[in-house]
Amino acid sequence: MKTADAKKSYQNLKGMGLTGAHLRSIVYLLDLDQETCMPSAGIGYRADLRKLVSELRHKQMTSKKLKSALESLCSLDGEGKYAEQLTDEQKASVREFRRDYLRDNKLTASFIRKMSDATTHALDAWKIAKQNNHFRTFAPHLKEIVKLSQKKAELIGYKEHPYDALLDEYEPGTTVSFIDKVFSELREKLIFIVNKRKTMKSNQIDTSFFTKSHFPLSHQKELCTQIVKQMGLPQENFNLSETAHPFCSALCPQDIRLTTHYDMSDFRKAYFAAIHEAGHGLYEHNLPMEHLGTPLAEAASHAIHESQSRFWECFIGHSPAFWRNQYPKVKELFPGAFDSISLDHFVQSINTVNPSLIRIHSDEVTYGLHVILRYEIEKGLIDGSIQVKDIPKLWNTMMKEMVGVAPPSDKEGCLQDIHWSLGAIGYFPSYALGNLYAGALFVHMIKTHTNWEQKAASGDFIFIKDYLKDKIHRHGRRYTPIELIEKATAKKFSSADYISYLETKYVS
Amino acid sequence: MKTADAKKSYQNLKGMGLTGAHLRSIVYLLDLDQETCMPSAGIGYRADLRKLVSELRHKQMTSKKLKSALESLCSLDGEGKYAEQLTDEQKASVREFRRDYLRDNKLTASFIRKMSDATTHALDAWKIAKQNNHFRTFAPHLKEIVKLSQKKAELIGYKEHPYDALLDEYEPGTTVSFIDKVFSELREKLIFIVNKRKTMKSNQIDTSFFTKSHFPLSHQKELCTQIVKQMGLPQENFNLSETAHPFCSALCPQDIRLTTHYDMSDFRKAYFAAIHEAGHGLYEHNLPMEHLGTPLAEAASHAIHESQSRFWECFIGHSPAFWRNQYPKVKELFPGAFDSISLDHFVQSINTVNPSLIRIHSDEVTYGLHVILRYEIEKGLIDGSIQVKDIPKLWNTMMKEMVGVAPPSDKEGCLQDIHWSLGAIGYFPSYALGNLYAGALFVHMIKTHTNWEQKAASGDFIFIKDYLKDKIHRHGRRYTPIELIEKATAKKFSSADYISYLETKYVS
Repeated sequence: MKTADAKKSYQNLKGMGLTGAHLRSIVYLLDLDQETCMPSAGIGYRADLRKLVSELRHKQMTSKKLKSALESLCSLDGEGKYAEQLTDEQKASVREFRRDYLRDNKLTASFIRKMSDATTHALDAWKIAKQNNHFRTFAPHLKEIVKLSQKKAELIGYKEHPYDALLDEYEPGTTVSFIDKVFSELREKLIFIVNKRKTMKSNQIDTSFFTKSHFPLSHQKELCTQIVKQMGLPQENFNLSETAHPFCSALCPQDIRLTTHYDMSDFRKAYFAAIHEAGHGLYEHNLPMEHLGTPLAEAASHAIHESQSRFWECFIGHSPAFWRNQYPKVKELFPGAFDSISLDHFVQSINTVNPSLIRIHSDEVTYGLHVILRYEIEKGLIDGSIQVKDIPKLWNTMMKEMVGVAPPSDKEGCLQDIHWSLGAIGYFPSYALGNLYAGALFVHMIKTHTNWEQKAASGDFIFIKDYLKDKIHRHGRRYTPIELIEKATAKKFSSADYISYLETKYVS
Repeated sequence: MKTADAKKSYQNLKGMGLTGAHLRSIVYLLDLDQETCMPSAGIGYRADLRKLVSELRHKQMTSKKLKSALESLCSLDGEGKYAEQLTDEQKASVREFRRDYLRDNKLTASFIRKMSDATTHALDAWKIAKQNNHFRTFAPHLKEIVKLSQKKAELIGYKEHPYDALLDEYEPGTTVSFIDKVFSELREKLIFIVNKRKTMKSNQIDTSFFTKSHFPLSHQKELCTQIVKQMGLPQENFNLSETAHPFCSALCPQDIRLTTHYDMSDFRKAYFAAIHEAGHGLYEHNLPMEHLGTPLAEAASHAIHESQSRFWECFIGHSPAFWRNQYPKVKELFPGAFDSISLDHFVQSINTVNPSLIRIHSDEVTYGLHVILRYEIEKGLIDGSIQVKDIPKLWNTMMKEMVGVAPPSDKEGCLQDIHWSLGAIGYFPSYALGNLYAGALFVHMIKTHTNWEQKAASGDFIFIKDYLKDKIHRHGRRYTPIELIEKATAKKFSSADYISYLETKYVS
C-alpha cells in the first residue's frame, strides 16, 4: 500500500467514525434531556428514540464499509497487523478502532435491543423499589440483567473469568486476577486507616456548623460556576444545571454539560459535586478536536475519567492550599455561616473519616471499601456463586465487616446505586481504580511542581489543568490506561502512591 | 389487492413513517436544546448533528422501500388513485403520505445540504446585523436564501406563481391568488379599524400601571404554570422553560416543551406568551397517538396551528370573562400592583389598539397589517419584482402607509424577525390566516356554547380545550385546512367572521 492510500483509507475510516460520534452525541443528548427537562410522561417515546439512535450507531460502527476500511489498514484476526505506512499515532488509533469493531461486532442487534428493553424496565422498577424499600420489586429485573450480562460475557469472550469480558468494556485490558490483587491490598490498608483514624483526636471535631445555616440557591450557583471557571473550563463551553444525581455529559469538546444538586442547608454537596463533574468536563474539553471521530479524541477509560474528577474533588478540592484561596469567598457569600470557624478547623472538618452507608456521600477512605464490596458481589453474580435473592443479606454482612456499619434498610444498602438497573455491571471497579490512578498522578505532580500549594493558595489552578491536559487529556486513547499512567508518572504503576497519600494525610 | 394486504401495506408504511417521526423529534430536540441549554461554543458541532439527522430523515422519507409501500396503496402519478380496500381514514392518511413523498422527493439531498448550510450562516449573520442595526451584514445571506427559495419553487413546481410552491409547504393548497383576495379585503378593514379606534375615548386610558411594579420571577413562573394547567395540559406532559423568543416544541403528544420570556417589570409578556404557546401545545398533545407515524397524527397546517395559539391568547385570554377568573389571582400574586385598577379598567387596558413597530408586540388589530406587509415583500422577492437591497426603504414606506409609523431603525424594521434567516419564506401568511381561522372558530364556539362566558368566568376552560380537540386536534391532517375549518364551523370559510369580531370588539 502506498502512503497516500493509507492516508486516504484512514481519512475514510475517520469520516465513518465521525458519524458514529455524532450519533453517540445524540444518545447523550437524549439522556441529558431526560434527566434535566423531559416531562415524566415522555419516557415511553424517549425509550424509542434512544433505541433507534443506538441501533443506527451500532449499524454504523459494524458496517461492511467500516470493516473494509479497517481491513485495508490492519488485519482483523490474530493480534492485528498494521499497515506500515501509518504514523504511530494513526496505528494507535486504528488499534482502538479495531478493538471497538471486534467488540461491537460480537454484540448482535438483537442482544442490544434486549438489553435496551431490559434496562428501560429495570430502571423504572429500581426507582420504585428504592422508594418503597422493597428489594423484591427490583429482583426479577436484576436477575434478567445478570442473565443478559452473562450472555454478553459469552458473546464477547474471555480467557479466565466471565467478568473479565465486562470489565474490559469500562477498563480495557483489566482482569479479575489483576483487580483481585490490587483490591485485596487496598482493602486491608483502608480498613486499617479507618480503624486507626477513628481513635484520633483530629477526627473528633465538631462539624455541626456545616448544616446550621441557610445557603441561598443563587449564591450556591454563583460559587459553583466560579470554581468551574477557575479550574479552567471557559464559560462558553459549559452549562451547569441541576439534577437529582450530578453528572457530566460531553456532547463534544466544545459542549460540556455539568449538573449538580443543591442542598439549601449544606453548600458542600453542590460545590464538591460541581468540582468533581468539572474534573470530568475538563478531560472531555481538552481531548484533541483534530482527531474527532477517532479513538484519539476519546477518553482512555472510565477509571482514567474517574481519576480526573477525583483528582480535583479530593486531592485538590479537600487540600488546605485550595481552601486558603476559596474559604474567604465562601465566607463572604454566606455571611454568618462560618464566622467562628478557623480555616484549619474548616479544612479538618471536610476531611473527617466516618463509617457511612451511602457510597456517594462517603469520605475518601471509606469510599474504596464501598466499591470493593460492590465488585465482590458483581463478580459472584456473573460467575454464579452469588444469587440475586441473597444480595440484601450479603450486602449487610459485608458492610458490617468492612465499613463497620450495617444499613438499616435496603434503600440505604443494596438499592442505593443506579448502575445495575442500567446494565452497567463491570463499572464499579473503575471508581476505585480511578482513585489509585489519581493518587499516582498527584504524587507525581507535587514532586514536579514543588510550589503547587503556594500557587493554588493564590487562586491559580490553571497549572493543574495544564498538567492533566499534558499528561492525560491530549492523548485520548493513544495508550492503554496503565501505559498512560506509567508514561505520565514515569514509573511502574502500583497502588502504593495512593495508599501512602492516604496514610500521610489521615494517620500520620 | 386483498383487504388484508392493504392493511399490511398500510402498517408497513406507518412503521416507516414512525421512524421518520422519531428522526424529526430528534431534530426538534437538537433545536430546543440549542435555544435553552447549549453553551454558545457548541454551535458548530450542533450544525453537524442537525445536518446528519435531517439527511437521515430525508433519506428515510424518500427511500425506495417507502416508495414501493406507497405505490402498493396509491398511484404516484396524476391525481393519485387509492386502493379501494383502505378505510376513508387510511385513504386520507395515504393521500398526505403521498403529498409529502412527492414534495420531499423533488428536493434533492444536495439542495437540502445547501439550504442547511446557507441558513446556519444566515442565522449568525442576522443576529449580528440586528444587534448592530446593519442590514448590509445580512443582505448577501438573504440574497442567497431568496435564490435558494426560487430554486426550491422550481424544484417543487407551481401552476401560477412561484410563491405558491413555498406557501404550499406551510399551508397546503393555498395560493397567491387566494391570499391576495383575502388579504386585500382584510387590509382595508384593519386600516379602517385602527384609524377609527384611535379616535375613541376607550382607547385613551392610562395603562402605565402595567410597568410600575416589580413582578418577581418565581411568582410569574407560578402564574404561567397554573394557567397552562388550567387550559388542560397535564403537568406530566409539559415543561415550561425560558428563552429569548417564546416557542412550543412537541417531541410527541406526551412530551410538550413550552418556553416563555419573563420581564420583571411587565408580567403580561410572559403570561400571554405562555398562553399562546400552550395553545400550540394543546394541539400537539391532543393529536391521536394511535396514528403516530402517519399524517393523521400531525397538525393540519401552520395556519391551523396558529389559529389554536391565537384562539387562546387573543379570543379567550383577552376577554372580560377570562379575566373575571384570572384577575383575583394576579392581584393576589402581585400585591400592590393593581390595587386601584378595576377589572373593567384592566381589561380595557389589555385591549388598546396602537400603531406599533414590532409584530410580536403588536395588538390584535395591527398584527394583521404587519403580516400583510411581510407577505407583499416575500412575494416580490420570489417573483423578482423586489430586490433584497431595496427592502429597508420599502419596509419603512409600507409601515408608514399601512400602520401609520415608520421604524427609526432597521432592527425595529426589516431586521426584527428571524424567519428569513431560517429560510422560512412562505410562512408569514400563516399568521394572518391563523387569525382568520380562529375568528371563524370563535364565532362558531360562542354560538354553540352560549354560556361560555359564565363558564370561563368560573375558571372552567376545559370545555374550550374539548371543543378545539373535537373540531381540530383529533383530525390531524385528515382534511385540508379549509375543509377542516368548514367542517368545524359547518359553513363556507370567509374572513367575515374575524372582521365582524374585530369590529364588534373594537369599534362598535
